[in-house]
Amino acid sequence: MAAEKPLTVVTCTAPVNIAVIKYWGKRDEELILPINSSLSVTLHQDQLKTTTTAAISRDFKEDQLWLNGEKADIGHPRLQSCLREMRRLARKRRGDGAGAAAPLSLAYKVHISSVNNFPTAAGLASSAAGYACLVYTLARLYGVEGELSEVARQGSGSACRSMFGGFVQWRMGERPDGRDSVAQQVVSETHWPELRVLVLVVSAEKKVVGSTAGMQTSVDTSPLLKHRAEAVVPERLTQMIQFIQQRDFEGFGQLTMKDSNQFHATCLDTFPPIFYLNDVSRRIIALVHRFNAHHGKIKAAYTFDAGPNAVIFTLEDTLDEFVEVVKCSFPPESNGGQFLKGLPAGPASLSGDLLSAVVLAPLPGTIRYILITQPGPGPQLLDNPSLHLLGADGLPHPSA
Amino acid sequence: MAAEKPLTVVTCTAPVNIAVIKYWGKRDEELILPINSSLSVTLHQDQLKTTTTAAISRDFKEDQLWLNGEKADIGHPRLQSCLREMRRLARKRRGDGAGAAAPLSLAYKVHISSVNNFPTAAGLASSAAGYACLVYTLARLYGVEGELSEVARQGSGSACRSMFGGFVQWRMGERPDGRDSVAQQVVSETHWPELRVLVLVVSAEKKVVGSTAGMQTSVDTSPLLKHRAEAVVPERLTQMIQFIQQRDFEGFGQLTMKDSNQFHATCLDTFPPIFYLNDVSRRIIALVHRFNAHHGKIKAAYTFDAGPNAVIFTLEDTLDEFVEVVKCSFPPESNGGQFLKGLPAGPASLSGDLLSAVVLAPLPGTIRYILITQPGPGPQLLDNPSLHLLGADGLPHPSA
Repeated sequence: MAAEKPLTVVTCTAPVNIAVIKYWGKRDEELILPINSSLSVTLHQDQLKTTTTAAISRDFKEDQLWLNGEKADIGHPRLQSCLREMRRLARKRRGDGAGAAAPLSLAYKVHISSVNNFPTAAGLASSAAGYACLVYTLARLYGVEGELSEVARQGSGSACRSMFGGFVQWRMGERPDGRDSVAQQVVSETHWPELRVLVLVVSAEKKVVGSTAGMQTSVDTSPLLKHRAEAVVPERLTQMIQFIQQRDFEGFGQLTMKDSNQFHATCLDTFPPIFYLNDVSRRIIALVHRFNAHHGKIKAAYTFDAGPNAVIFTLEDTLDEFVEVVKCSFPPESNGGQFLKGLPAGPASLSGDLLSAVVLAPLPGTIRYILITQPGPGPQLLDNPSLHLLGADGLPHPSA
Repeated sequence: MAAEKPLTVVTCTAPVNIAVIKYWGKRDEELILPINSSLSVTLHQDQLKTTTTAAISRDFKEDQLWLNGEKADIGHPRLQSCLREMRRLARKRRGDGAGAAAPLSLAYKVHISSVNNFPTAAGLASSAAGYACLVYTLARLYGVEGELSEVARQGSGSACRSMFGGFVQWRMGERPDGRDSVAQQVVSETHWPELRVLVLVVSAEKKVVGSTAGMQTSVDTSPLLKHRAEAVVPERLTQMIQFIQQRDFEGFGQLTMKDSNQFHATCLDTFPPIFYLNDVSRRIIALVHRFNAHHGKIKAAYTFDAGPNAVIFTLEDTLDEFVEVVKCSFPPESNGGQFLKGLPAGPASLSGDLLSAVVLAPLPGTIRYILITQPGPGPQLLDNPSLHLLGADGLPHPSA
């Protein structure tokens, strides 16, 4: 029946994830196989998501791609890897007879349009959500089922973790062909309903070293990275899974901070050294440690990816107070912009003790805004045709 | 004859040193035994030195200490360790008969006055020069000879390396009593006459974590530090000695930078993390890498101790150009202060190529001054009585 329509179109969304046991370094550049396993929290798509529409039609002359409404290069090798792999899986499925109902010609060209609902400036790994969304959308389009994280991994390593909701492990695997280097859900997004995630977006210089080039240099030059991957991470991964299963915030928070610091330590041990943390990041780190010291226990934990923005974990009962502490320490500039985005935070009055122990020398304007979110589900199919990013002509809507 | 004078007085000077294979972490807090060997360059006393006068007299009522002209606490445990150990060695020598000529009563109290010719703000390890000078001066006073670096080490670990000029190794040793944890000259200060050393003094916040507390926390919490000490440093030490013996600046410079970065990486892997580098330090690091990339070889190398100030190694033929590059990148504020101190640097005109490749976005006022020096000799006895820091009354001169 779909073959009778001029256009077959599918739209899906996929989430961002933030690693708490970090991935840094590949053992195979081509297949994107990591030197250690990693573990992440999938963030809720109510706040952060990529939406992708893929369409096929006998009328399309060539594969085409639009990113955030702008025409983009579909020839990018990693994107081509994902497309090729998804078409291969679709052919395989058809050959197996399972796809007998799939009416689409695999020879048809595809149009893909993808948008993020968050600015690149947020410094979140948009490529993870982007490739997860691409692979999930193509799978729905071609009727492919089964293990998809392996395909997403070939677009962007961390994308494989965005194929699931909640808490997700990426097992490094052992096979040279990467078939066992896949993501796996540890627990779902409903497991720890009290957990909150804050993204502190820092006003910053542009990222100097991209993560792909950076991690390769680290693998080539850092003696400490090799030791971390072989001797430190395996034990940490086991511990982290236990902390999550037990909803042990102190254990989870402390190990999250340690692993973020160790990742940045291996960046500094790289030659030439790579710095992603800046002086504002350092101030946020010091603030979190003072906050925890004041409370005599770990009530907030930071983690930083390849940029200066902090991602903070805390629990629902601490959210309002911590947000107030951040507002006092990094007062918003009164430029009319919204300082708090995402989930609401209520008012909190800070005790004089807390203020004097934790809030030192405020730095106005150095944090642009705080986005509040929580763990969320994996990729979703959108049923509502009005949400397609491509029109009946197979092109992005003018408004996109 | 000395016994007939009311006062016996000796004045000596001792140098600062800067490690190129870093010491960070003790295996024995009491004896100051390190977890790895280290290697340093002794800086010339024409630019940076501590001067110490020690005097004994039958009239002194108690041991007394003055630092930079101010009365200070002589009861400090590490200072007491050095005093006790020097008196023990003097008694031993007398018991051996070798000190028959030494006329001094070891029961006499001692007055000690010590001054630095550089501000503490320079962030150089003043305790290294200070304890080296104390031990050397007491040795001259009591007529003690032989292995003194072991005593200096008990004042401040890195002080043992200031007991020699040129390039100095501190062998970690193996004995629990520390008798084999001593410094040793690799080559003298005349070995590499072209080498120049620049201290870039950064305008900075006060150091937050002292090195004694910091390194203990690192030993307790950083998995990477343990690996560094056991698996990385031994090989680096061997390489570094070869580079120095061969006057191989590229090898020396690259390994110096790598080891500085690895030391700071282990600080970041400490929990809570320790940061000594700030954004200005990072800018200096990036500048040095751009400078070397422009020249297609390593012509300058940085190292950082427990603070944001950079120490730069370069060769005589590159000095003027590098200084000019620093002046253009971190223009002095016109506050009348002297920007260049120490050895002279000549004028240099930078090519347009170099300027556009290396000097990006100047940051005025972020470097306070540059001190230019070179490798220098070990501790010295001053013969001129007018240089004593204590008067005939055993007290510091009013002008001191």
